Amino acid sequence: MSDLLWQKPGVAVDAQIQAFLAGDDVLLDREFFLHDIAASAAHAEGLQRIGILSVDELDGLKRELAVLAEDFRNGSFVLDERYEDGHSAIEARLTERLGDAGRKIHTGRSRNDQVLVATRLWLKEKLARVAELSREIAKVALDRAEAETNLPIPGYTHIQRAVVSSAGMWWAGWAEAFIDDAIRAADTLKLVDANPLGTAAGYGVNLKLDREHTTQALGFARMQVSPIYAQLSRGKFELAALEALGSATLDLRRLAWDLSLYTTAEFGFVALPAQYTTGSSIMPNKRNPDVIELMRATHASVAAARTEIEQLLSLPSGYQRDLQASKGAIFHGFGRGLAALELLPALLANLEWREGRIRAAIDSGMYATDVAVEAAIAGVPFREAYKAAAASADSAGQGRTPEDSLAARTSPGAAADLRLDELRTRLQALG
Amino acid sequence: MSDLLWQKPGVAVDAQIQAFLAGDDVLLDREFFLHDIAASAAHAEGLQRIGILSVDELDGLKRELAVLAEDFRNGSFVLDERYEDGHSAIEARLTERLGDAGRKIHTGRSRNDQVLVATRLWLKEKLARVAELSREIAKVALDRAEAETNLPIPGYTHIQRAVVSSAGMWWAGWAEAFIDDAIRAADTLKLVDANPLGTAAGYGVNLKLDREHTTQALGFARMQVSPIYAQLSRGKFELAALEALGSATLDLRRLAWDLSLYTTAEFGFVALPAQYTTGSSIMPNKRNPDVIELMRATHASVAAARTEIEQLLSLPSGYQRDLQASKGAIFHGFGRGLAALELLPALLANLEWREGRIRAAIDSGMYATDVAVEAAIAGVPFREAYKAAAASADSAGQGRTPEDSLAARTSPGAAADLRLDELRTRLQALG
Amino acid sequence: MSDLLWQKPGVAVDAQIQAFLAGDDVLLDREFFLHDIAASAAHAEGLQRIGILSVDELDGLKRELAVLAEDFRNGSFVLDERYEDGHSAIEARLTERLGDAGRKIHTGRSRNDQVLVATRLWLKEKLARVAELSREIAKVALDRAEAETNLPIPGYTHIQRAVVSSAGMWWAGWAEAFIDDAIRAADTLKLVDANPLGTAAGYGVNLKLDREHTTQALGFARMQVSPIYAQLSRGKFELAALEALGSATLDLRRLAWDLSLYTTAEFGFVALPAQYTTGSSIMPNKRNPDVIELMRATHASVAAARTEIEQLLSLPSGYQRDLQASKGAIFHGFGRGLAALELLPALLANLEWREGRIRAAIDSGMYATDVAVEAAIAGVPFREAYKAAAASADSAGQGRTPEDSLAARTSPGAAADLRLDELRTRLQALG
Amino acid sequence: MSDLLWQKPGVAVDAQIQAFLAGDDVLLDREFFLHDIAASAAHAEGLQRIGILSVDELDGLKRELAVLAEDFRNGSFVLDERYEDGHSAIEARLTERLGDAGRKIHTGRSRNDQVLVATRLWLKEKLARVAELSREIAKVALDRAEAETNLPIPGYTHIQRAVVSSAGMWWAGWAEAFIDDAIRAADTLKLVDANPLGTAAGYGVNLKLDREHTTQALGFARMQVSPIYAQLSRGKFELAALEALGSATLDLRRLAWDLSLYTTAEFGFVALPAQYTTGSSIMPNKRNPDVIELMRATHASVAAARTEIEQLLSLPSGYQRDLQASKGAIFHGFGRGLAALELLPALLANLEWREGRIRAAIDSGMYATDVAVEAAIAGVPFREAYKAAAASADSAGQGRTPEDSLAARTSPGAAADLRLDELRTRLQALG
Repeated sequence: MSDLLWQKPGVAVDAQIQAFLAGDDVLLDREFFLHDIAASAAHAEGLQRIGILSVDELDGLKRELAVLAEDFRNGSFVLDERYEDGHSAIEARLTERLGDAGRKIHTGRSRNDQVLVATRLWLKEKLARVAELSREIAKVALDRAEAETNLPIPGYTHIQRAVVSSAGMWWAGWAEAFIDDAIRAADTLKLVDANPLGTAAGYGVNLKLDREHTTQALGFARMQVSPIYAQLSRGKFELAALEALGSATLDLRRLAWDLSLYTTAEFGFVALPAQYTTGSSIMPNKRNPDVIELMRATHASVAAARTEIEQLLSLPSGYQRDLQASKGAIFHGFGRGLAALELLPALLANLEWREGRIRAAIDSGMYATDVAVEAAIAGVPFREAYKAAAASADSAGQGRTPEDSLAARTSPGAAADLRLDELRTRLQALG
Repeated sequence: MSDLLWQKPGVAVDAQIQAFLAGDDVLLDREFFLHDIAASAAHAEGLQRIGILSVDELDGLKRELAVLAEDFRNGSFVLDERYEDGHSAIEARLTERLGDAGRKIHTGRSRNDQVLVATRLWLKEKLARVAELSREIAKVALDRAEAETNLPIPGYTHIQRAVVSSAGMWWAGWAEAFIDDAIRAADTLKLVDANPLGTAAGYGVNLKLDREHTTQALGFARMQVSPIYAQLSRGKFELAALEALGSATLDLRRLAWDLSLYTTAEFGFVALPAQYTTGSSIMPNKRNPDVIELMRATHASVAAARTEIEQLLSLPSGYQRDLQASKGAIFHGFGRGLAALELLPALLANLEWREGRIRAAIDSGMYATDVAVEAAIAGVPFREAYKAAAASADSAGQGRTPEDSLAARTSPGAAADLRLDELRTRLQALG
Repeated sequence: MSDLLWQKPGVAVDAQIQAFLAGDDVLLDREFFLHDIAASAAHAEGLQRIGILSVDELDGLKRELAVLAEDFRNGSFVLDERYEDGHSAIEARLTERLGDAGRKIHTGRSRNDQVLVATRLWLKEKLARVAELSREIAKVALDRAEAETNLPIPGYTHIQRAVVSSAGMWWAGWAEAFIDDAIRAADTLKLVDANPLGTAAGYGVNLKLDREHTTQALGFARMQVSPIYAQLSRGKFELAALEALGSATLDLRRLAWDLSLYTTAEFGFVALPAQYTTGSSIMPNKRNPDVIELMRATHASVAAARTEIEQLLSLPSGYQRDLQASKGAIFHGFGRGLAALELLPALLANLEWREGRIRAAIDSGMYATDVAVEAAIAGVPFREAYKAAAASADSAGQGRTPEDSLAARTSPGAAADLRLDELRTRLQALG
Repeated sequence: MSDLLWQKPGVAVDAQIQAFLAGDDVLLDREFFLHDIAASAAHAEGLQRIGILSVDELDGLKRELAVLAEDFRNGSFVLDERYEDGHSAIEARLTERLGDAGRKIHTGRSRNDQVLVATRLWLKEKLARVAELSREIAKVALDRAEAETNLPIPGYTHIQRAVVSSAGMWWAGWAEAFIDDAIRAADTLKLVDANPLGTAAGYGVNLKLDREHTTQALGFARMQVSPIYAQLSRGKFELAALEALGSATLDLRRLAWDLSLYTTAEFGFVALPAQYTTGSSIMPNKRNPDVIELMRATHASVAAARTEIEQLLSLPSGYQRDLQASKGAIFHGFGRGLAALELLPALLANLEWREGRIRAAIDSGMYATDVAVEAAIAGVPFREAYKAAAASADSAGQGRTPEDSLAARTSPGAAADLRLDELRTRLQALG
């Protein structure tokens, strides 16, 4: 391990303790090393603007930060256990290459705001991707809703056959779900879009830092004003981001459940392209919908990440080392969450309905509600119409077709009036 | 138990099973019984507009619904185990008083959209209250930040003395925190502000329901278009609401931790008015800050409610009875969460700093960072200035005062430049 | 509200704050009021044995405690908001009836050990019930495994048809699951079977309390020695108990999932007696397996209770008021958990297989594994046998019957060698 | 990526999908690769005993498995992305080296029981370590309790000074806590000590596998009889193990909180050896107790792992791919949990009390309970004695010393009667 920035002379270092303190920090820091470099460049610009760095020093720092970024990208610089963390690695490299300019970069900055700003940039990027993928998923769903408006499928409650539904209705449901998820991700992005750089260790610093400049240079919508709040937002914003992601992965969990049922031999409503399935190590006959199952499992990882951070946040204000554990959590949650969402648009675009099986699953009892409502329209009080239909549930529907049922389903949002335009308008408003 | 609406003749009812099915549903339904009544009136209006009810029938229904609401409010109608749930109680009462008009009220409606719309109205009300209370808390904090800008207090990291801070910084931190909580509650309110009434059992109905009317009559911002999504949003919106509440109760947890420490004999920074403390059953000497501890505990209940719902939502689309358990969860989470937030503005307005104890806790080592940064301003590379200050941490600060330190803390957001106006502007923009 | 035991003169009491402090404590205390009374009697006996109470005083206290218990049971004493909590109610009643003897009952006791011991007795009772119900469930499952050893059912992985299985195997699986749950509940009962009474507020007391006597009188297996640990075990033991319950409710969740699928129209393997199903308010044709769905939902409530307590327990040692929230949590978790488990033996005993539907679901591909293993027995390396069988998966099984497949399934624990005796022996060893 | 064992010809493989399916499985499999090898050897022995393998084939397999284990240990074999998972890597290596013997190793086995048995062996090892460390921690605590029986320290409730306590009581409390944790880990080890090998894909196999032999060869206490239950126990046993670990890490969380407070400047009761502290990147004066904070944070990771698995387990019986996510969860939870527990014995053995600060924190009000109880002994009804002591709480204790108070604390378990022998006896009974 490299020298520790803060080490005092004469204190023996215990290897097991150091390993415990480090955890896998340095590996995790790879995730936002480039964000840390970008924020370091902005911080250096700010320092030059208030006279802490000369123009030459700034040029040197920016050049070496760019080189380091490139070295990291192409693998010639590897962030590993030689460093305490990514932050020290940057300072060490700059000092090695530039001498005093490197020793100056940390002026007015603490690792506390350094990790905050890198994390914040990373979260913004991930939330933007959640929003983008949610919109893509909604778009596929809307397109298929339009194309399959009139394809009847059974509608279930309690996983029991209830009334005739349509592929159009099913797709429109998922479209509206993911539109909301996109909105939520965008709202959350706006919430966290605040620059913590310049708050030092949570109490500011005796230096007129140019926080307006770093805010603008890093593309933040606003400055996070209070240094105390900058610290309080560690973990809080990570939770908000995971909750926004979780809104999408929870919808995905329910969607995956539908597909898991629909691809059973017993339902048989959906065929998946072969690349979404796998075989068994012992059973030669199997083709398993593993992709769907792992999609269903995804939310568990997002939930775990959320738990890890929430459990940490029973602390007084001010930085505590406990918060270190929040890093691994967001990487785990977003890693799994986004990997699943990335696959979803193509999977949805490619799944095929098996129409014969679907039609066979629509039985005559599924018209009973239609019958009762028709009687109500004709003037029979609904509660009586209901009882009459219940008494003859199986026979009442005879002679009806799924198409009849769908054509009459005229309540707004239902099969005969899907209002896809309204949904498309909401989707397009999201950009 | 009353007759079950849906009971078929000839099926024996087992009391233990019925009790299990009912749970404490009917007691929980008291929470949004008035919302259910309001939504029933809107539904009846909609039915009249499409010819299912006559004007006279509508008048009767609206009158009897108003009477029922009044009877419920004044206690002459008690919603209890005589009813299967609140929904059946309303229909039963209307049928008893009005005959066929009562039997018609459920036309085109399912208990599924009935409970959805009542819950939605309730959630909107609660989220508005979270937003309002968060704004109140932020306002108290801003006012005190302004009044106590120059009061020095020790700043901690790792609960270890770090640098001089100020009451102004501490209050400003909480102000910015609760401004964000207010924004989040408002965003969430907007997300859930969609009318599910008219989606029936999740598949719409063969009736041209006037959903535009009910949307407007109930004050919703938009219609929740898809009946499938209306069902998918059950639990999802409850989670979003609990997460918004949790953002505030998690800030409260950290604030309560500060106060729990500050009111110990050892810190002794804060005095609480006596009504916020309690005694012990065995120890005559105790005055305990129980209110603060229960505030700290509040988030646990919100987290529990969230867990309960999240665990349920591993289901295919369509209504499943599992979702019934989500009702008790939101009542528990919001019940506890709001009770704590309601007390907070007054508690914050009334707590007193104990200035003598506070000043005694500011030791000379807390100026070391100032010293190092001053040297950096004078041209010493920060990393060297840091080492020099570390070598003489205790002596370096001698002769300095907390007031000096605060006056020099000029980074934006820090003690000498709190930018309360920016925070107040953001707060006022929230209405 | 009654006088507060610990109230100091001259402190104004604020009603909203008092309501917040009280929560629904007094209602919750009903749950273990009888346990509190029993422990109070044991405590009084202990006090008499060390000379704090006279024999007459003890007689009076025991008599009045018995009367109070009876009054509570028959409803003539109602524990309600007139009291701060159940503990104060007991002391108030004894003082009202007996004067000084009542004022002496709290000698050497704190509400801290009072609530601990009452909770402990309650937890022991509930854990014993979990163990008992788990054994009952295992017994029903074993009996049915024996009766239905040779009934073929499809075996699934990934909810895809895999190999032929049997009702015997399915039942034996649940039997072994609930045997383990019974063991876990019993282990946990042993872990918590330690008497905290006599530890006062967590630091003992200057009185030679006869803790051996109370330990024995209340039926505890041992004394919880350390008063500090008695406090540390608050929440910890509740968690352990909920986790033991959760082991059973998690098995129930998976069992309910099986039944939820098996009762769909598409699988159609299982018929439920009508009393386990309900109807719909709008769809006349529906019979829904609500009981099964609420069973599936049960674990969510247990998990929520666990979360609530776990989130609280980020505290230093010693009592903190935060722990009050743990009471409601265990009542909620065990209330829901036991209600579901109570119904399970009868439901399992009464469900019926629909043999025709089951046989129709066993297709010829499900013999492919048998074919490959047979080839392996004949000397073909398994990986080659697997490939050959995969190439002809659908045809390879032709001519085979489910009975053939089951008769050959001779690996220990499989259909032809269920080893129910081993399971029954383990079950019987549990008493 | 290597060939997939189960790949059917003609199915295109999509790289992104394959990456999603694989996750970081192959890296995770490193954790129990040696257990997988050990179980493979036992399985081969079993196959030889029933005639599937010749003695020569067995010898070859055992030899090559030993070589592979050695290569893995010394780094000459690296388990990486070239393999689908650790299971396939073993079979591939054996086939490469031995030909048909390698192709036979998977006879009668599925990856389902293969991963189950490797995980089970790993869990047993980890639980044994939790038990062992808990015993070590308890031993250190008991030793220090004995050595510091008479050292007074303040006793707190609500983090408010309550009564005089002692270091002896404090240490005894943690000793009893970790004794219980050791018992719980041992109970859980016993619960999971059941051999799943030989259950194949959850339905057994048409081969008389010698499961008695593998059970004994792998050191399991019993066979897990039912193949269905073997699958149901996936996740269930992982949860049980994490809950046992969590019992210890939750105690650690509270212990770390005590130490976090005791090492503040304000309490100042405890000094930590320098190697347990770290410095700050910006504040030259800081020595922070980071080790303690990371110990406090540890439970969050255990809780997260538990959440991840619990959330997955809402599934019907039979293997589902969702369960793959349980692997990373246990590695994360046990990795963090054990790393923290490993450091604890030495930390506890080395922390030093700062007696001057401690004595200064014992104020006269802390004798009020003693005074009240003394009056009760003298015959004053306790409730009256309490009121009298409350009225003069600060003066009543004057002239008393902490030593007086401790010497009189004679209730069993309290300072004057710690009963360390009873605790030591329980500890020693654990082996």
